[in-house]
Amino acid sequence: MTARLIGIDWGTSSFRAWRMDAAGRVLDSLDTGPGILAAGQEPGGFPGALERAVGPWLGRGVPVIASGMITSRNGWVETPYLPLPLDAAALAGALVRHRAGLGDLHFVCGAVDGADGPAPDVMRGEETEIIGHLAAAGHDQAQGLFVLPGTHSKWAQVRGGRLAGFRSVMTGEVFALLRDRSILGRLAVPGPFDAPAFMRGLDAGRAQGPLLARIFAARSLALLERLAPAQVADYLSGLLIGDEVARMAPPPQVPVTIIGRGDLAERYRIALSQAGAAARIAPPGMARQGLWTIARKAGIV
Amino acid sequence: MTARLIGIDWGTSSFRAWRMDAAGRVLDSLDTGPGILAAGQEPGGFPGALERAVGPWLGRGVPVIASGMITSRNGWVETPYLPLPLDAAALAGALVRHRAGLGDLHFVCGAVDGADGPAPDVMRGEETEIIGHLAAAGHDQAQGLFVLPGTHSKWAQVRGGRLAGFRSVMTGEVFALLRDRSILGRLAVPGPFDAPAFMRGLDAGRAQGPLLARIFAARSLALLERLAPAQVADYLSGLLIGDEVARMAPPPQVPVTIIGRGDLAERYRIALSQAGAAARIAPPGMARQGLWTIARKAGIV
Repeated sequence: MTARLIGIDWGTSSFRAWRMDAAGRVLDSLDTGPGILAAGQEPGGFPGALERAVGPWLGRGVPVIASGMITSRNGWVETPYLPLPLDAAALAGALVRHRAGLGDLHFVCGAVDGADGPAPDVMRGEETEIIGHLAAAGHDQAQGLFVLPGTHSKWAQVRGGRLAGFRSVMTGEVFALLRDRSILGRLAVPGPFDAPAFMRGLDAGRAQGPLLARIFAARSLALLERLAPAQVADYLSGLLIGDEVARMAPPPQVPVTIIGRGDLAERYRIALSQAGAAARIAPPGMARQGLWTIARKAGIV
Repeated sequence: MTARLIGIDWGTSSFRAWRMDAAGRVLDSLDTGPGILAAGQEPGGFPGALERAVGPWLGRGVPVIASGMITSRNGWVETPYLPLPLDAAALAGALVRHRAGLGDLHFVCGAVDGADGPAPDVMRGEETEIIGHLAAAGHDQAQGLFVLPGTHSKWAQVRGGRLAGFRSVMTGEVFALLRDRSILGRLAVPGPFDAPAFMRGLDAGRAQGPLLARIFAARSLALLERLAPAQVADYLSGLLIGDEVARMAPPPQVPVTIIGRGDLAERYRIALSQAGAAARIAPPGMARQGLWTIARKAGIV
């Protein structure tokens, strides 16, 4: 098979790449590599990091398409944020081309919601995963609510086959700060996943009152030995995800599609199900599918 | 004047001490010294730190009374948490006496609210400040709502002259984590107090939706250059305090007394006033007054 496209999902602390043939089939893939924080500090910067990661794939006129934080101010080439509603054609038409010694690179734009409103929001990379899911699912997914768990989880609304609105929640980053650097974290020790602690956290997440009071109560529970040190992190995880789901208030019975992997996607599935939503986890590969779809629309492949 | 009592308000990162005569008048005072985190690591530990800070005051049978985190597990002598409702007599009756080479030390207990409920809460030190305020204000303050801003701000309800309920909110600690260690903080630069940014933050704090989404929106505002780098911290401060006040929902027209100092007390006064509460800042000296009141009830002085 001849390679026709290299797709890269390049985030703050992650790097995933795929080498695809003319039909979008995967010839090779790479699941690890330096995120932009690490890559920006390597010798040769981003070009050097790219060459070390996927050097043997490059050259011979195979174009590269990349999405994620690599297109941010701290990335390689900064691309604009496109307004909503947004589809694959709009993203294809706005690709930012960059000629490098390694060949032609094409950077996907981010998306902005409510740029002039009181609470604007931005994304880079998740738009590509949503486009990938829409392409894979076809007309089944012309409408719907999507959740992309992560450092900054995204809740996205799709209408008429286009990304129509979204909101970011800083759940993953604040979880890590509280676990690793707060007074609460000092009472925690690592342990295997503790489902009862996570479920107790979900209950506290649904409750009323300031979130920062409910987090302090977790510390009091630990101090009073009503939460074991190995349970603190899972309780906190449930509390933050439970608060997020309760406040985002997905309408009951409306299907919610989780685009994500592993343990974190499963935590959101449990939280959404508990809140009465019809949650399902999307099949893997949405970022690659989105990169392929945008590249096809742009006529790169 | 002969000294009859040494009072110490000894917190995680603060140390304040007063030398008082038989009428509770201040003969000497000290506003700085090592908090328990620093003192615990000094040569000689807590006794050494105490002697270095107030050595010339000690001895000759003058008793010492101390409250705050010095009575916690990471402090000098751990005291129990007393249940509510709580008054000066109960705190006096439960003082924990510790004989040291330096003389007799008396450690004040903490307080616990809802020890068996789903969201227990604890305090150490603030109970003494509230007792001090009740003693100073007399019958005027037999009922009321108090706010003690800080790393972990406390909202306390007083009924019949006793501490009847309280809730802690992790506002100060989370503010510092976000400013110093999060993606939002990377867009911030220090600057003088920016009142318009603080007021915009208060508006965002009152809004609905997940707190962690509204914090992420602050980052988007900065990224889109709708918030200047020197405004980010004050916007965030307003957002967190505004969320705290809105979710604690003090009943309108009910006076709220702020026990605290300086800039932070003033921020809470503005936020409470904006929310329709009749906020006032208590005169200074409540911790010293509380220590004196408890020592008198206990017959130490």
